[in-house]
Amino acid sequence: MPNSFGKLFTITTWGESHGPGIGVVIDGCPPNLPITAAEIQVELDRRRPGQSDIVTPRKEADAVEILSGIHEGRTTGTPIALFVRNTDARPAAYDEMKDKFRPSHADFTYQAKYGLRDPRGGGRSSARETIGRVAAGAIAAKILASQGVELRAFITRIHDIAMPAEALAAVGIPALAEVEATPVRCPHPATAAAMIERIKSVRSQGDSVGGVIQCRVRGLPPGLGEPVFDRLEADLAKAMLSLPATKGFEIGSGFAGTLLRGSQHNDSFEMRDGRVRTTTNRSGGVQGGISNGEDLVFNVAFKPTATILQTQQTVDSQGRPAELMGKGRHDPCVVPRAVPIVEAMAALVLIDHWMRHAAQNQTFKF
Amino acid sequence: MPNSFGKLFTITTWGESHGPGIGVVIDGCPPNLPITAAEIQVELDRRRPGQSDIVTPRKEADAVEILSGIHEGRTTGTPIALFVRNTDARPAAYDEMKDKFRPSHADFTYQAKYGLRDPRGGGRSSARETIGRVAAGAIAAKILASQGVELRAFITRIHDIAMPAEALAAVGIPALAEVEATPVRCPHPATAAAMIERIKSVRSQGDSVGGVIQCRVRGLPPGLGEPVFDRLEADLAKAMLSLPATKGFEIGSGFAGTLLRGSQHNDSFEMRDGRVRTTTNRSGGVQGGISNGEDLVFNVAFKPTATILQTQQTVDSQGRPAELMGKGRHDPCVVPRAVPIVEAMAALVLIDHWMRHAAQNQTFKF
Amino acid sequence: MPNSFGKLFTITTWGESHGPGIGVVIDGCPPNLPITAAEIQVELDRRRPGQSDIVTPRKEADAVEILSGIHEGRTTGTPIALFVRNTDARPAAYDEMKDKFRPSHADFTYQAKYGLRDPRGGGRSSARETIGRVAAGAIAAKILASQGVELRAFITRIHDIAMPAEALAAVGIPALAEVEATPVRCPHPATAAAMIERIKSVRSQGDSVGGVIQCRVRGLPPGLGEPVFDRLEADLAKAMLSLPATKGFEIGSGFAGTLLRGSQHNDSFEMRDGRVRTTTNRSGGVQGGISNGEDLVFNVAFKPTATILQTQQTVDSQGRPAELMGKGRHDPCVVPRAVPIVEAMAALVLIDHWMRHAAQNQTFKF
Amino acid sequence: MPNSFGKLFTITTWGESHGPGIGVVIDGCPPNLPITAAEIQVELDRRRPGQSDIVTPRKEADAVEILSGIHEGRTTGTPIALFVRNTDARPAAYDEMKDKFRPSHADFTYQAKYGLRDPRGGGRSSARETIGRVAAGAIAAKILASQGVELRAFITRIHDIAMPAEALAAVGIPALAEVEATPVRCPHPATAAAMIERIKSVRSQGDSVGGVIQCRVRGLPPGLGEPVFDRLEADLAKAMLSLPATKGFEIGSGFAGTLLRGSQHNDSFEMRDGRVRTTTNRSGGVQGGISNGEDLVFNVAFKPTATILQTQQTVDSQGRPAELMGKGRHDPCVVPRAVPIVEAMAALVLIDHWMRHAAQNQTFKF
Repeated sequence: MPNSFGKLFTITTWGESHGPGIGVVIDGCPPNLPITAAEIQVELDRRRPGQSDIVTPRKEADAVEILSGIHEGRTTGTPIALFVRNTDARPAAYDEMKDKFRPSHADFTYQAKYGLRDPRGGGRSSARETIGRVAAGAIAAKILASQGVELRAFITRIHDIAMPAEALAAVGIPALAEVEATPVRCPHPATAAAMIERIKSVRSQGDSVGGVIQCRVRGLPPGLGEPVFDRLEADLAKAMLSLPATKGFEIGSGFAGTLLRGSQHNDSFEMRDGRVRTTTNRSGGVQGGISNGEDLVFNVAFKPTATILQTQQTVDSQGRPAELMGKGRHDPCVVPRAVPIVEAMAALVLIDHWMRHAAQNQTFKF
Repeated sequence: MPNSFGKLFTITTWGESHGPGIGVVIDGCPPNLPITAAEIQVELDRRRPGQSDIVTPRKEADAVEILSGIHEGRTTGTPIALFVRNTDARPAAYDEMKDKFRPSHADFTYQAKYGLRDPRGGGRSSARETIGRVAAGAIAAKILASQGVELRAFITRIHDIAMPAEALAAVGIPALAEVEATPVRCPHPATAAAMIERIKSVRSQGDSVGGVIQCRVRGLPPGLGEPVFDRLEADLAKAMLSLPATKGFEIGSGFAGTLLRGSQHNDSFEMRDGRVRTTTNRSGGVQGGISNGEDLVFNVAFKPTATILQTQQTVDSQGRPAELMGKGRHDPCVVPRAVPIVEAMAALVLIDHWMRHAAQNQTFKF
Repeated sequence: MPNSFGKLFTITTWGESHGPGIGVVIDGCPPNLPITAAEIQVELDRRRPGQSDIVTPRKEADAVEILSGIHEGRTTGTPIALFVRNTDARPAAYDEMKDKFRPSHADFTYQAKYGLRDPRGGGRSSARETIGRVAAGAIAAKILASQGVELRAFITRIHDIAMPAEALAAVGIPALAEVEATPVRCPHPATAAAMIERIKSVRSQGDSVGGVIQCRVRGLPPGLGEPVFDRLEADLAKAMLSLPATKGFEIGSGFAGTLLRGSQHNDSFEMRDGRVRTTTNRSGGVQGGISNGEDLVFNVAFKPTATILQTQQTVDSQGRPAELMGKGRHDPCVVPRAVPIVEAMAALVLIDHWMRHAAQNQTFKF
Repeated sequence: MPNSFGKLFTITTWGESHGPGIGVVIDGCPPNLPITAAEIQVELDRRRPGQSDIVTPRKEADAVEILSGIHEGRTTGTPIALFVRNTDARPAAYDEMKDKFRPSHADFTYQAKYGLRDPRGGGRSSARETIGRVAAGAIAAKILASQGVELRAFITRIHDIAMPAEALAAVGIPALAEVEATPVRCPHPATAAAMIERIKSVRSQGDSVGGVIQCRVRGLPPGLGEPVFDRLEADLAKAMLSLPATKGFEIGSGFAGTLLRGSQHNDSFEMRDGRVRTTTNRSGGVQGGISNGEDLVFNVAFKPTATILQTQQTVDSQGRPAELMGKGRHDPCVVPRAVPIVEAMAALVLIDHWMRHAAQNQTFKF
């Protein structure tokens, strides 16, 4: 089931960029949770195209419809089906690309794998597919919030413009308003301004940039994560690398941590606030694949958008050399719209693991 | 099934560091593959303790027994059970740690999750668990080799000692002999010498270091990977982050790729050797989550070993402050022994995806 | 994922009896299969309410919409979403039942399990849920047909009116037209007439009856089925017992076979038509959990419809004794409409197993 | 993972009849359960060959070894590996069968599926494989018992010798001692005596017989079962049809229930003992796929043993006609030894569903 994610709180997504719409089915959601379409819409609006002047101008309301699983405002424990219609599809914009493989896109690999493909806007490989993830993630996030868990993603770097280290150290779990203060979703205003400038600049050159998102989670209980294969960071890594345009994941000290010695890297234990805590958090909130009650902290790398408005060399489906000039409406930088997507995937992983942990460790007591 | 990995070629591992032994069950292996215990042993010997003077001196032959699934030297298609006995367990060495949580180990989180734990050598959280992965990976690797696929992992950096960029660019798929030429498994002799020096130096100070492993795979067909969630890089990321001591994963250009513009990062297509190829490989062999026929290239970050022979601050199971001096026999750097483990996990992911791809796309033709 | 079925050809169903509609997502369908909404509609029309004078008069066109996964008339290998709107829902008919548990329905158990329920028409527990199964099964059946496999279900008994043993022995794989010749879907005309008479008679008394469906499949290759747990008959049994109102499953000789001795029951082997065949088929087409190339033959028992138009004793949600008089529009016998549902589930099991078998045994050759 | 069963309490079995032994890995067992090898051995002794004069004389102690997952007498939450060595294997007894397909055995289908097979005693298709199920089931059964659940299987019919209907109605949940009072495991002494007589009689003729096992479970909470596909009876049906030699499954009224009218078949609700109860139990303890708190009652049909000591017609692996005279040591009737196996599978299904139910419905409260 390559289009399903999660073992107990499971989502299944479907839909293509220029078909009738995008959907998701959530199976295993706990019953009796109050949830409205409006609450889901809030998150969809954060990933929506056309939301600011640094993202694609494609005009989609991305309005969610609830088709099942919710009765009189509460989840019933049965599958929740959510649907978002495509309304501003312009398949004609893709006529040229029908027979040419766009560099660093999935055109060639889908053709190679399946023997045919839906060329309209990338079909299933379009990032519009993530609508279903965000809609489902909104429900997972509401459950997390009900347990006192704070989860927030934000941009720490666009191209080579990064939040200063001290600002990053001081930011804690940023409030939603801090992240949403600018369209670039970096909670450090000066850096955000420079990032926006850079995005506009590369767009004016028909080019694109990528960046790094950091996600932090506070308030998780110790115990989430299922060794040896379903370690919490393993499932987070999979969740993040399953997103379009991602090229890397690190938890806690990450790649930089390999430059430290063990004596510098280890997190000592102490008693604080009446429970076992670590004095530092290079582990990033997990030890041995299980949450330790400290903040979960991880980074995700997003490559520069593959579609650029410049002439590129490629081949067509007959293997003839061809030139391709990017068309369609695209983001010069996907990272700002990816922030709610990262949050959604993190929330989905956490609820799933919370339920798995409870099943084994809280169902029976001996 | 947190101790199982893979959907069609599935491994299930079991066993603790100081119990009777470590095992693995492989379910779904294609029948009729010729395989011997000796072939599996070759890979186990590469991860074995005591193999060189820069690893733990624990003396384990790690001799594999085949308990099922192979008849007259060939796989039968039924579950293959492999077993390695523990012979040099010294549980008494862990008496002090029974009631103290070792910093940056899994002692505290296992206790928090399960309410009790096997403290002998970390029990299930010990890296001895990876014996099962390596044994199973040897079978997967043999299948890959039979299809002309070359797979090789090696160390590119220990602490801050890295292979020169030109050497890395030139190394291609290193031969096994090049990697095994030194105990540190870096195919660049001068760098390897410096790495060994560094490991010995930190060990003499009772300290530890980490590093980075790169894995490369040549000869994969285009088409492996199952979007949208089971992208090839997503399952590789999960596989790698499921390994003890890993903190990061990147594919292709990775985090560094976020510093490029789209026009610099995109891989143009061309015809070469009669098939569609890319002129560069910043994608790292995957596009849209599916292999494109170029070399698969990914990196894995390993933190410095948590066990150090220095006094550290911690708490005991009653929450009282405590001091802990590391004992037992440990690796000052786990990265050299992790090289065959990374290869094993990569091979397991690839065979599983190969079978999944074939099931959907080659079973029926219309 | 309790609302998903199948490991490689996987369906996920959603929707309630009186909500917006019913849907299904098919993940893992082979690409390039030509399929139209009209072909799917044929099967939906066979399970549709209001199709004859012996079934419920609820008026639903059950018109299927294709929302994803099919491009220019062919499957693309990505998830296929199918949707059927509810149009003749009359939730008011269920007002009385909102607080009373209908005997032998799922009202009480859904309330006990989830703590709340959608009382309109049974919500998710309604047999309308099987629309998604039938729609997906139509695609699976088309693949089977393309491989020369014939699959046909039909009614062998309603209440105590059964096809004569000789007629059953002689019927082979009945043609679709033979089954559809009467609304009761028994291919033996005289028996069918008596069955129809019985259904009308019990309906006139506000009562209901059940019966037995037999399903036969010809042309399967030997080798389908995955011991030890995913035996072909085990997955068929699960598929059938997952249908509303089913109480039993038997394959081949079934319960009656327990009255024979081994010497009477065993199927001898012989060469016939150039391949290994059995002289009899008490095994029902499977041996050791794997298809042997003979006709697959199994029976499914359906209990009498729980909703009857008579006064019944029950309790309400406060535990007070209550009387309930069945309302709403119901089938006096669900078995005729269950025939295409049994076929759909059988087709889904077979395609899934065909792909699983091919993955392990045909991907690699040594 | 065809050799794994269960979603949260998962067992994976391995091993062949005449290889080194048989094993099972249990993943997901709740921690802190006290369990000893002796407790597991009790159940293994009930399925052991050579236990009485009506079963195979093969001499196997079937002594279980615990290889992992239990520390100081308690489960740790990590995988439990159990192993039973084969000690009385006589592969030479199977020389003749190496090239001849035994009628109604799995020889031909394994050969057809995998292209090769282990002919010694049926290899993996041997019922010795169920040792792993019984060992794991003993742990599941202990958990059930700790929750006050009584689970008991027993034989209701051998060949055409059945418990009288009144005796069956009166037997309730028989005590273990009642079932074990005779080697045939029928709790009605007079019937048991006749059954034993019949088994001895057919054995003396080199023939075999089958029969029916009934399993009853008392004390389950309402709410177990995961519609729509993982209904409790669906997973029980799969579990039972995954056993060697089974040909049918029915729950509650089963096939006989199809002879009743709805007005006769429905189970009315009433308040009893302070909770919602049914006045009758034709549903067999499940409604809508979910346990309703009444006794779970189901039947399983076992065919007569395929191996008989008579000359049978078959073909050899070259397709030449051949005669085969059964050799080896076999049960003239497998049903008595299948009683603990049915109990084991039922216990495994129930614990798995209990954990799944708790995960969704008890982890979070809103």
